[in-house]
Amino acid sequence: MPTWVPGAAGTLFDVDNLPYGVFSLPGEGPRVGVRIGDHVLDLAPVAAAEMLDVHHVFQEGSLNALMAEGHRVRSSVRTWITGLLTEEPERDLVEPHLVPLADVTLHLPVEVADYVDFYASEHHASNVGRIFRPDAEPLLANWKHLPVGYHGRAGTVVASGTPVVRPSGQRRGDPAPTYGPSTRLDIEAELGFVVGVGSELGTAVPHDAFADHVFGVVGLNDWSARDIQAWEYVPLGPFLGKSFATSVSHWVTPLEALDAAWVDLPAQDPEPLPYLGPGQVQGLDIDVEVVVNGEVVSRPPYRTMYWSPAQMLAHMTVNGASLRTGDLFGSGTVSGPAEDQRGSLLEVGWGEESAFLDDGDEVTLRYTAPGTAGGRIALGDVVGRVEPARG
Amino acid sequence: MPTWVPGAAGTLFDVDNLPYGVFSLPGEGPRVGVRIGDHVLDLAPVAAAEMLDVHHVFQEGSLNALMAEGHRVRSSVRTWITGLLTEEPERDLVEPHLVPLADVTLHLPVEVADYVDFYASEHHASNVGRIFRPDAEPLLANWKHLPVGYHGRAGTVVASGTPVVRPSGQRRGDPAPTYGPSTRLDIEAELGFVVGVGSELGTAVPHDAFADHVFGVVGLNDWSARDIQAWEYVPLGPFLGKSFATSVSHWVTPLEALDAAWVDLPAQDPEPLPYLGPGQVQGLDIDVEVVVNGEVVSRPPYRTMYWSPAQMLAHMTVNGASLRTGDLFGSGTVSGPAEDQRGSLLEVGWGEESAFLDDGDEVTLRYTAPGTAGGRIALGDVVGRVEPARG
Repeated sequence: MPTWVPGAAGTLFDVDNLPYGVFSLPGEGPRVGVRIGDHVLDLAPVAAAEMLDVHHVFQEGSLNALMAEGHRVRSSVRTWITGLLTEEPERDLVEPHLVPLADVTLHLPVEVADYVDFYASEHHASNVGRIFRPDAEPLLANWKHLPVGYHGRAGTVVASGTPVVRPSGQRRGDPAPTYGPSTRLDIEAELGFVVGVGSELGTAVPHDAFADHVFGVVGLNDWSARDIQAWEYVPLGPFLGKSFATSVSHWVTPLEALDAAWVDLPAQDPEPLPYLGPGQVQGLDIDVEVVVNGEVVSRPPYRTMYWSPAQMLAHMTVNGASLRTGDLFGSGTVSGPAEDQRGSLLEVGWGEESAFLDDGDEVTLRYTAPGTAGGRIALGDVVGRVEPARG
Repeated sequence: MPTWVPGAAGTLFDVDNLPYGVFSLPGEGPRVGVRIGDHVLDLAPVAAAEMLDVHHVFQEGSLNALMAEGHRVRSSVRTWITGLLTEEPERDLVEPHLVPLADVTLHLPVEVADYVDFYASEHHASNVGRIFRPDAEPLLANWKHLPVGYHGRAGTVVASGTPVVRPSGQRRGDPAPTYGPSTRLDIEAELGFVVGVGSELGTAVPHDAFADHVFGVVGLNDWSARDIQAWEYVPLGPFLGKSFATSVSHWVTPLEALDAAWVDLPAQDPEPLPYLGPGQVQGLDIDVEVVVNGEVVSRPPYRTMYWSPAQMLAHMTVNGASLRTGDLFGSGTVSGPAEDQRGSLLEVGWGEESAFLDDGDEVTLRYTAPGTAGGRIALGDVVGRVEPARG
């Protein structure tokens, strides 16, 4: 059934999309909304008027309470919202609570618990290996046996649109390291997965329990200072080269909106261990666009990733590490096999200094996927502008 | 002035100590208390009765609200508590709210925001280098230029006493890795620093602002599965080898209690970059005891660390990464120069398999420091017992 919302039908934010976000109006507190076309539906008053059991979750300043309710509530809330936006008799109740996007402030949608970043693209890992270690095997020995990952800084995950201050720090130098603003500021175009339902400490989450725990998907830019990273990362991994900012989209696309986007990923050889669910694994057919100062510089396809989202979740918890509502895990840079499909400027410029970001540069990541109605849907954009180093 | 609390004077938890924790009584919610001798003072009712401005912070289930008030409030609250416990006229008001430790349940004291772990002991880093890379320089090129660190998993920081389930995962194998319970389960005896006051994104925290941001100190055991860690950690650092559990003490010792514990650390050569505050740097003269199944196996001295707590804080934020209330950063394994001063079983047993933990083993870390009254004070113990792997 088509939506009655003016201007929404046929757009990338039609009723088959319906991502959630957190918005505020001038002088009011942030609360949960859902996007339809170029409007936000203010869910709290509508849910209260209809005496929805879970109406309190929409009054919160993050999606965490909604996400914690689990996949049955997620499904039934989506069915309820779809009815509100498609059935003419609901229009009188609902329309007063539709707010133009232009009138709202959008916030970080999730209170991030732990942030983990993976390295799941074979093309990205191989490219990085070739650039940094031209005379060695591009992939390290463990890469095809496990989805390599590490913990990032949850407190510096910021909403799309937040300016990114160029980080300062130590860079390798001869005979001694130097201190100053990074001269190799880069992006990593990624997909992020947001956990709704936690798990018990000491108990692994099986790979087939993905939809029981993951609520939805965000666009994610893992800003990276390559010079800081190169000097610090041996032996304990990336730290200050990444921890200054990670940008995510304002909108969290629930898994239901991506039901038509699942595709077979490339075959995995060697076969992974049983806890990683070997056999044909599934990823999402999401197209990414990397836009720098208005120009599309790359179009990474998520369907070329090696490790699947369910495998990343199973690996992250195989040691008994518990999940919490608000945990965020990133795919790692999405790079496809072609030159115009690379998800970092390091790869786009193949290590050339000129490829990195200047002060004032603006980067936008755009994402689209097949929708359940036969057309396409968009995930939220991830936008960030580089500000000069401070101090 | 001595305390009137029965049995407390002259103990390691006398009025010069006064660490904070979170406790509950049967059927009641967790709230903030302070330890004196073998009692917990229930601060909320006393603060309410005395109409203390900040009395609400003691009703919370974590120390975060108290810690966020900053160092002036921290000082004045400490002065107020000292008065309560030393002045006889206060006794009638206060004594009904003193609860024997044996009657309370103690909880994780802090809602942990981000958890960062450093690697600040030269002796530990050198020992690990010699064990794993016997033919190479034990310290890597960056080690003496910056305090190497990485992000750990905040969601699996647990309170002392929480059982530690042996983690399962991938271990290196020939020709392929194998899956199973870790056979090299280890500890790392560390000191943890808890952030009270956050900082602004994009702005570094200078090394001399340590006491403006850090509230206090906890004992910390960074449980480590050496076989899982060895296979996974190149190139992005430790992940599942550490993320299954990190134990911290129930008690957070405020910086004021450690005023007499600051000592010069060993000289740093080469001189660090200016943002790290070169010159004579200060650490804490805290003695650690590692106890396995009741037997003291090691006595690491914190005064032998290379990088200071203030340097770790300055480094962690030099790229503009912001701090939040509840951030926790660990020193890394504390190991001294002598054989009986090593803070991990890997070092104690010098790589021998028999040194690692069996199911049922119980590890206790004990900490003491010079107190401001001329004697010694204790930090909270960190206790954990190994449970068999599940599933």
